[in-house]
Amino acid sequence: MRKVAIIGIGDTRFGELWDLSLRDLGIHAGLSAVYDANLSGDEIDALYLGNMSAGKFIEQEHIGALIADYSGLARDHIPATRVEAAGASGGLAFRQGYMAIASGMQDIVVVGGAEKMTDVGDTLSTEIQAMAADQQWESSFGATFPALHAMIARRHMHDYGTTREQIASVAVKNHKHGSMNPKAQFQREIKLESVLKSPPVAEPLGLFDCAPVSDGAAAVVLCAMDKARKYTDTPVEVLTSTQASDTLSLAHRESLCRFDATTVAAERAFKRTGLSPSDIQVAEVHDSFTISEILAIEDLGFFPKGQGGAATADGQTALGAKLAVNTSGGLKARGDPIGATGIAQVVELVHQLRGEAGKRQVAGAEYGLAHNVGGTGATAVVQLLGRVN
Amino acid sequence: MRKVAIIGIGDTRFGELWDLSLRDLGIHAGLSAVYDANLSGDEIDALYLGNMSAGKFIEQEHIGALIADYSGLARDHIPATRVEAAGASGGLAFRQGYMAIASGMQDIVVVGGAEKMTDVGDTLSTEIQAMAADQQWESSFGATFPALHAMIARRHMHDYGTTREQIASVAVKNHKHGSMNPKAQFQREIKLESVLKSPPVAEPLGLFDCAPVSDGAAAVVLCAMDKARKYTDTPVEVLTSTQASDTLSLAHRESLCRFDATTVAAERAFKRTGLSPSDIQVAEVHDSFTISEILAIEDLGFFPKGQGGAATADGQTALGAKLAVNTSGGLKARGDPIGATGIAQVVELVHQLRGEAGKRQVAGAEYGLAHNVGGTGATAVVQLLGRVN
Repeated sequence: MRKVAIIGIGDTRFGELWDLSLRDLGIHAGLSAVYDANLSGDEIDALYLGNMSAGKFIEQEHIGALIADYSGLARDHIPATRVEAAGASGGLAFRQGYMAIASGMQDIVVVGGAEKMTDVGDTLSTEIQAMAADQQWESSFGATFPALHAMIARRHMHDYGTTREQIASVAVKNHKHGSMNPKAQFQREIKLESVLKSPPVAEPLGLFDCAPVSDGAAAVVLCAMDKARKYTDTPVEVLTSTQASDTLSLAHRESLCRFDATTVAAERAFKRTGLSPSDIQVAEVHDSFTISEILAIEDLGFFPKGQGGAATADGQTALGAKLAVNTSGGLKARGDPIGATGIAQVVELVHQLRGEAGKRQVAGAEYGLAHNVGGTGATAVVQLLGRVN
Repeated sequence: MRKVAIIGIGDTRFGELWDLSLRDLGIHAGLSAVYDANLSGDEIDALYLGNMSAGKFIEQEHIGALIADYSGLARDHIPATRVEAAGASGGLAFRQGYMAIASGMQDIVVVGGAEKMTDVGDTLSTEIQAMAADQQWESSFGATFPALHAMIARRHMHDYGTTREQIASVAVKNHKHGSMNPKAQFQREIKLESVLKSPPVAEPLGLFDCAPVSDGAAAVVLCAMDKARKYTDTPVEVLTSTQASDTLSLAHRESLCRFDATTVAAERAFKRTGLSPSDIQVAEVHDSFTISEILAIEDLGFFPKGQGGAATADGQTALGAKLAVNTSGGLKARGDPIGATGIAQVVELVHQLRGEAGKRQVAGAEYGLAHNVGGTGATAVVQLLGRVN
């Protein structure tokens, strides 16, 4: 297994980007990453692309070839592979790229993620997002994605005494972080009261508990570590990338209050690297809903089960604490263009580990963790990154 | 790079399978392959799944997790990854699995492909298939998939004198082969006259020049060669798997009469293995239309450019000739459940290389080639397989 470095990053602003198509977004992010890596295109061995549902959102499949073509990579007949696992599409694409280089099969790989969600209306968008869940046993009975997460929230409140205010505090923190991120969809702070009073979506979750519908793209360039210094003075090491599955339907789980795929992926990642949760200073976790972040920080091992809500309300995951969670603003404030999210998490960690995160810099960040989820936890991917001294 | 073996294969019949859902198909093929490999489920390291457009065909994304769940693999939290490149989805999934084992990262991997196409009507099905082409510059102007291939056929006739009868002879041959394949969608021979007189779809192509709309699934189990004998007496070696891209739109190509992605993928495959086209006795090539097979056998190097039609009409690609092409019946007669096709090609080659192909057995088959295409040639994958003595 070779060491793998990230030598370039690029992303678009996330938001309602009416004037940009999926191909525009993909090309912008991809070329930004290639420029950041000081690469010429002919050094690239492969492209991996995370995208959940271009078929439904823009009536286009075969997205890998599309982006390869419009980025100029088709000229050299570079292999382009689209990977999909709903919300974890970006994280899985990253893992494919990581494995390709770690194994010695490829030297330089571009991994991108992109989604163009706002070309369809809100109703269809909600339906498409529900395709991450089990269409036969969940979605077709009317269980939207917010509804499934509302059940999780209710059960977490019941089992552990988590309060509505604690859940809402995730949104307050992430909006505060987002206010320091010029690429975030929402760059305004919000008050706890605003979250509590926001229009109900699926109770107890209100509008401000839900990540928005977003357009956007992000990309990274991966390279064998022994060649990384040729391109950059600040390579960031990919220490490992792990993935795990769980049942697609919530009904088949032992508990609604944990995502076992997250736990297993995290355990595998810590075991492989010899690190533990306390070694991590900065984590980007999958907060598609406020309750999701509480589950995530528990399942990843940062806090004992049931204490994620209290820890968040207590400021233990905010910028300045020992562990900063979702400094980018997270899905909640940075935005959630589904296929792009897993890559955008990595982009944020690279900013942090390079020491380039500006106002939201985590002092002395040495190890970062990205946690990307598909559906209601049926797929989870964990990436561990480290600063190279 | 470790040697990789195929130790198990499984598939469903292809056709209009009204009583089987996508998950039924995927499970049936996957479990058949696992049984064929004499595996217990807990030895499996990962699942890769090829699928083009479950989002559009059955309103379900996150198919990797779905199949992992319903196959019982989620219990062990096995990573499940869906790969998409339109018609080449299966071939690309196979390549991911091959790389995972060749690199030493995984030991035993299940690779499946599945598509459930007949739950939507013919018009929508045609629209979905057109999403493999460029939605912005081709499909949205009304260029369906048959229309794009009709242009290719016209140009091939113009440039090389290929005749309508030669093109039709591909269908006659593949139906004859399909008549010997109990899993084929069409198991009846047809006459040249029937092809010529079939209702026009996009002239010069008629109904019998087009692969059908199909439901179906196929799966293989891949294993490191040094462990393969533990499971089977008849491992088949994967000699290499190569992939190449081209422009998504036909309009951006130098020539309509060749798929450069095919040529490049084939050249890479022959270079890596030291084989040449004349070493191959049996090939499964991507005949989504009759004209596609003519392009394929030329681009793969079996016949000089322009001579594929004459060679086919002359019987040089039929069972019994030095090279047998599409002994399964090909997409044309075996059927084309899009994501399953690239895996079904490999399943057929394994039958041939094991000497288990029954009436359609190619005598002394030693090397087999599978050729899987996405869109009108924007993605191509070539797999080279060899008998293990």
